[in-house]
Amino acid sequence: MIIVTGSVVAKAGMVETLMRECLAHTRRSRTEAGCVSHAVHIDAENPDRLVFFEEWQDMPALMTHFKVPASGAFVATVRTMAAEPPAMTIYDAKPVTPGG
Amino acid sequence: MIIVTGSVVAKAGMVETLMRECLAHTRRSRTEAGCVSHAVHIDAENPDRLVFFEEWQDMPALMTHFKVPASGAFVATVRTMAAEPPAMTIYDAKPVTPGG
Repeated sequence: MIIVTGSVVAKAGMVETLMRECLAHTRRSRTEAGCVSHAVHIDAENPDRLVFFEEWQDMPALMTHFKVPASGAFVATVRTMAAEPPAMTIYDAKPVTPGG
Repeated sequence: MIIVTGSVVAKAGMVETLMRECLAHTRRSRTEAGCVSHAVHIDAENPDRLVFFEEWQDMPALMTHFKVPASGAFVATVRTMAAEPPAMTIYDAKPVTPGG
């Protein structure tokens, strides 16, 4: 499984507009093949910081997601509203039991 | 690296109190050995749902964290404020580059 975490800090006064874009992206992404989960959150310590948590079936599914035109348009839009460059980390991940 | 995700839905009217407990837990956890990151967020689609994202150096560090008395007290407190049993998933994870 692939996990993606990402975050973007909104420019002053832009977080509501940014959130609308992020929610639309999340809801669109959930319909794509290989998307296990996709959600956006508000950092409890910074209301201007929106944080994504995504699970994808495998790397090819994520690569296909990145190539969807709406994903590219979303990234371009987000950059115009971001106070700093958005961050993203990708992990190759396997669910385990505590201690296991 | 170990990733932990968890979420808890607050009983009606309790999310502010729950958030105070969660933030205190996050800030305490960050000081523990092997904690790479620890943060709490508000689900953009459900303001009563608080979501944790944590990174730990390895499984022994996470097991030590679970045994800290304050962690156990936090879990017990959270259960009293939760509208449904809290969820948690643990992953053995390795950062990768896109496509890699």
